[in-house]
Amino acid sequence: MKQQIHMHPDRLLPPGGAPLDVARTLYNGVCDLPIVSPHGHTDPSWFAQNKAFSKPAQLLITPDHYLLRLLRSQGRSFDALGVAAHDDRHGAVDDRAIWRLFCKDYSLFSGTPSHLWLMHSLHQFFGIDAPLSEATADATYDRIAETLATPQMRPLAILDRANVEVIATTEYATDPLLHHQVLQEKGMTSRIRTTYRPDDVTDPENPSFTSNMARFGALTGEDVHTWKGMIAAHAARRAEFRAFGATATDHGVPSAKTFDLSLPQKQALLDKALKQTMSPQEAEAFRGQMLTEMAALSVEDGMVMQIHAGSFRNHDAALFASRGPNLGADMPMRTDFVQGLHPLLNRFGNEPGFRLILFTLDESTYARELAPLAGYWPALRIGPPWWFHDSPQGMRRYFDAVVETAGFANLAGFNDDTRALLSISSRHDVWRREVSRFLAGLVCERQMSEESAADIAIHLCYTAAKKAYNL
Amino acid sequence: MKQQIHMHPDRLLPPGGAPLDVARTLYNGVCDLPIVSPHGHTDPSWFAQNKAFSKPAQLLITPDHYLLRLLRSQGRSFDALGVAAHDDRHGAVDDRAIWRLFCKDYSLFSGTPSHLWLMHSLHQFFGIDAPLSEATADATYDRIAETLATPQMRPLAILDRANVEVIATTEYATDPLLHHQVLQEKGMTSRIRTTYRPDDVTDPENPSFTSNMARFGALTGEDVHTWKGMIAAHAARRAEFRAFGATATDHGVPSAKTFDLSLPQKQALLDKALKQTMSPQEAEAFRGQMLTEMAALSVEDGMVMQIHAGSFRNHDAALFASRGPNLGADMPMRTDFVQGLHPLLNRFGNEPGFRLILFTLDESTYARELAPLAGYWPALRIGPPWWFHDSPQGMRRYFDAVVETAGFANLAGFNDDTRALLSISSRHDVWRREVSRFLAGLVCERQMSEESAADIAIHLCYTAAKKAYNL
Amino acid sequence: MKQQIHMHPDRLLPPGGAPLDVARTLYNGVCDLPIVSPHGHTDPSWFAQNKAFSKPAQLLITPDHYLLRLLRSQGRSFDALGVAAHDDRHGAVDDRAIWRLFCKDYSLFSGTPSHLWLMHSLHQFFGIDAPLSEATADATYDRIAETLATPQMRPLAILDRANVEVIATTEYATDPLLHHQVLQEKGMTSRIRTTYRPDDVTDPENPSFTSNMARFGALTGEDVHTWKGMIAAHAARRAEFRAFGATATDHGVPSAKTFDLSLPQKQALLDKALKQTMSPQEAEAFRGQMLTEMAALSVEDGMVMQIHAGSFRNHDAALFASRGPNLGADMPMRTDFVQGLHPLLNRFGNEPGFRLILFTLDESTYARELAPLAGYWPALRIGPPWWFHDSPQGMRRYFDAVVETAGFANLAGFNDDTRALLSISSRHDVWRREVSRFLAGLVCERQMSEESAADIAIHLCYTAAKKAYNL
Repeated sequence: MKQQIHMHPDRLLPPGGAPLDVARTLYNGVCDLPIVSPHGHTDPSWFAQNKAFSKPAQLLITPDHYLLRLLRSQGRSFDALGVAAHDDRHGAVDDRAIWRLFCKDYSLFSGTPSHLWLMHSLHQFFGIDAPLSEATADATYDRIAETLATPQMRPLAILDRANVEVIATTEYATDPLLHHQVLQEKGMTSRIRTTYRPDDVTDPENPSFTSNMARFGALTGEDVHTWKGMIAAHAARRAEFRAFGATATDHGVPSAKTFDLSLPQKQALLDKALKQTMSPQEAEAFRGQMLTEMAALSVEDGMVMQIHAGSFRNHDAALFASRGPNLGADMPMRTDFVQGLHPLLNRFGNEPGFRLILFTLDESTYARELAPLAGYWPALRIGPPWWFHDSPQGMRRYFDAVVETAGFANLAGFNDDTRALLSISSRHDVWRREVSRFLAGLVCERQMSEESAADIAIHLCYTAAKKAYNL
Repeated sequence: MKQQIHMHPDRLLPPGGAPLDVARTLYNGVCDLPIVSPHGHTDPSWFAQNKAFSKPAQLLITPDHYLLRLLRSQGRSFDALGVAAHDDRHGAVDDRAIWRLFCKDYSLFSGTPSHLWLMHSLHQFFGIDAPLSEATADATYDRIAETLATPQMRPLAILDRANVEVIATTEYATDPLLHHQVLQEKGMTSRIRTTYRPDDVTDPENPSFTSNMARFGALTGEDVHTWKGMIAAHAARRAEFRAFGATATDHGVPSAKTFDLSLPQKQALLDKALKQTMSPQEAEAFRGQMLTEMAALSVEDGMVMQIHAGSFRNHDAALFASRGPNLGADMPMRTDFVQGLHPLLNRFGNEPGFRLILFTLDESTYARELAPLAGYWPALRIGPPWWFHDSPQGMRRYFDAVVETAGFANLAGFNDDTRALLSISSRHDVWRREVSRFLAGLVCERQMSEESAADIAIHLCYTAAKKAYNL
Repeated sequence: MKQQIHMHPDRLLPPGGAPLDVARTLYNGVCDLPIVSPHGHTDPSWFAQNKAFSKPAQLLITPDHYLLRLLRSQGRSFDALGVAAHDDRHGAVDDRAIWRLFCKDYSLFSGTPSHLWLMHSLHQFFGIDAPLSEATADATYDRIAETLATPQMRPLAILDRANVEVIATTEYATDPLLHHQVLQEKGMTSRIRTTYRPDDVTDPENPSFTSNMARFGALTGEDVHTWKGMIAAHAARRAEFRAFGATATDHGVPSAKTFDLSLPQKQALLDKALKQTMSPQEAEAFRGQMLTEMAALSVEDGMVMQIHAGSFRNHDAALFASRGPNLGADMPMRTDFVQGLHPLLNRFGNEPGFRLILFTLDESTYARELAPLAGYWPALRIGPPWWFHDSPQGMRRYFDAVVETAGFANLAGFNDDTRALLSISSRHDVWRREVSRFLAGLVCERQMSEESAADIAIHLCYTAAKKAYNL
């Protein structure tokens, strides 16, 4: 039992008694459902090219900001972990050396979801059940490296083995979608879809905003110097994205503030944005107005809108300057959805067919804002616990806080939201276990029958996501 | 077991073991206590006229904003649910048709407190134990309609059957209190009491503020154009309300901000309010000053003051324009009690005999603000979980967050705060079960004896409310 | 069982089954570890003089703001409790009379951590197991008074009996450290250490700021009218504190806002501070800049920095005016660490050897801010639940919210932060029980092995504090 503690069949379920029995039954009803992954950050080139991965650490560690951040928090060097600096002053790092460092520090991850995900992946794809440690570093490295060379570890085979029915990647508005073109040629678009995430041209504080806008104009042939032209450019790109399977858009914003301004006000903002003469308040107004514009386009073209709000990106300015974004230095902020979304919802919240899925990094909004909003406005659905909160306790707090007010019908099921391909099944598995645990609690408190709970479990683990994303 | 899942005798109690045994014993000690309902929104005309209710859906569904909001969130039409629009463009809706719609969608309410309340009411008053569904819609409708015609379903009989010892309704400052006059003539004032809620004349952003003020002046004979006259009008109306049994006032405010201004500043605010030339900041100052004035009057006349803070009313402007308020479109907001109440508490927080009961929609204030404040200031008591949080999980979060810092003596017991007459006993029952569950946890963790827990259970389910409201 | 409910060996552990078994085992592994108390407010004169305490109520009640506040919340008089007013209009209160009042009201403390702490202390030091009540007041008073006269109740004997390996007191920047000099002469500095808390000269809103600054200049011989001189004065005093065992500094601030201003801006702030012409915003900037300066000094001299943020001190202005601070009238406020600490962390967050331990009164920051920050920045550690949250439920919320994101390595272990000498072992005991309970949950959910849990328990109860504070 000791050596395989992480793969115990009852992991995350209640410790005993009727709750465990009921949870096991519920879990057995959902554990083999196909995976619907409507939002995430896997790389479409993997699927288009279907080449073997070769380097264990560069597959499993270097791109995983959950691992990097915790290692850095204990003083580990990003150079030693193979995170390249722009000036590349350390040159390439030996992949095995990275793996050894990681294994040596592995106990840092006790009690974190990264441990659950990684142990599950190592078991599922590499047959590794021993705990990671300095002692097992070389043997596990070799085992992973060998296995990666086999055909069943090609990206498309991994999707099959993980039982992925449909997965969405995420591309910026100016992305040429070359890999998705290949996927389309191979007839795989209904399984591997893109998502329209136009943050590159909706955030005037993005350092590349003006060059992005120039490219945006060039790609679409629209005059993006006029508000109308810019909106037409979005409409055009959204249509192209839909041709590559996109059913949804996604918007990463520091706050949930939205605006509903007049055309002259909007044009004035755009002028300033293009001249890069905006105040932070004006930049927020631009982003907030763009959310409302995206909602307007969704009402027309039926794309499901997602808002991921409340991240203070690149909290460590020196890290960003030397190595770039997405290395674990993004921090949550307080977010106000009730006041922030008021302008947008008052324009479109009752529009038939419009759907807006909300994600938060501020759990105090679950019961106070998201559940009351989604429990009223027809357009709204609540996305699953996101990022720092995609964890057993995070899910428990989520269910406890949202279900009573929003019901189950207003939840959008699960997203893995990951760039870590091998972790997809483990993340969905954690969700399925926590769904089973939560519903078993309701059954054992006599709030619902086991039959209802079984139906709701399937809804939460499969149907809700398909329905919420029109898949 | 399956068919009566919702009425299992152990519902909401812990799933087994010693915690269940202890919780059962505690629950048995409180389940038959009379109901004290010191704050709510039942209609006094029901009790004054004691006429039979006749239409099941118009009794149970159309007035219940908890049900309406969740149905609307899934796209159901308020027209079809019989919620009249001002232009009444759809005319009357057949009552049975509403019930059928509701029953068809009943599974939406799984996991919500509405399910607990409704199943309890249907069982208690109509002997209905079958789950609601399309299949059972007509039979349950007929059963309810028949039963409503019987004498034991008259409003006063319902109070008796629910074992209501005392109940308070809530009336605006300009209410003529006609129904309470009838109740007084019938000698029922000590059982059915009014509450003074002067929001109609303390909120300058109320669209009817100026006409309300004119009526307020006319009713009291005071010159409400002067601050002093307006305060005298309040004092007069408070006295009248007390004659109809009121022991408390109630104040619904978007924020907990209070002010303690000079007379010239106050008069200037009143002048602007009457001319309707206020900025939002000035309107907030007016409301916040009025809270302090109400506290001053409570110090004089001994009425218990209640503040229900933090609701963004009528978040859907189009709904409000077409159908009015209280239809499920009110949303919680972040609330700051520590800084907001500072002026008021520094004037009156130590006054002997002054009591102020606080309610929040922002659960993050439980441990951070309400419990520390109530655990220090002699005037303060913490009201029970309110509105969205009047639910099993809401109560668990409340007890977990407030008791350790505020103790039990600073809690005001339970309020059902409902306009749904038939739900009163079910709401108190949920509270009593959750009280038993929480205290059983403390007993089983050896933090208190069963004897103490039994005493505290009675305090929380009965005595605390009587004491807090001077009943 | 009934009479000793508070000292049940399984108190606070899970109620039964495998979780209880595992928790017991874990607790047995940590319950006898020496106590490391790196932050608190005991009085160094106790240890320097080692005189017997004589008055039970003046030892156990009058200085304990947790007890005072709850008694006051129920209308008890501070005069009767022996809390002296500045005008001393009531003269001395009989110590036994205070104890009687307290015992009579003892049931107020049911469900609060004060009950756990007091019962533990009475058992451990006085052999008292009977519940406190009016009936037992005199007998318990006599027992305590007699025992206090014995040698084993001298302050140093109490430290021995509580198994305190090391304890830190807290002194202001202008403190002459006379008692620590005595301790140094007695060779006790490595066991009883001071901590540098310069709030007296970093908060321009302190009523004694200018006189404190004058004294600060006199003590150090630096010209504290120049920014450079003031910083040099801090450096000098920090060195002196280190000579008396200090390894840490501590900073109590209303917000977590920090600044990184230019020298002319800083000098301008200092000029205004000394002239007492600051706006509240400027005072906040001064305090926030001083946090950054303290971090700069810590980078140089290696002292561990602590920030205790978010208390609204002296919420009752009348109480403060009549009786002074620290009587239970301090209230938590919302705190923003992510934006507030951004300037400081961007200067020093990656400095090797710099360590900053954060404490919050706003639990919504645990998962949203503190865990993500500490899970990235090498300098940061999260302090234990503080003040109102140093309680069983407070610890449960803390573990649930921080561990998944920050891991165990970024936690700073436990602080008792108390001025109540006799409560130290009871406070650490509550922590050790809650650590055992939390880890038993992870073991029983198969998230970790019992072996790992046992190691982590020792880390959380002993090693982490020594390491975090360089002890």
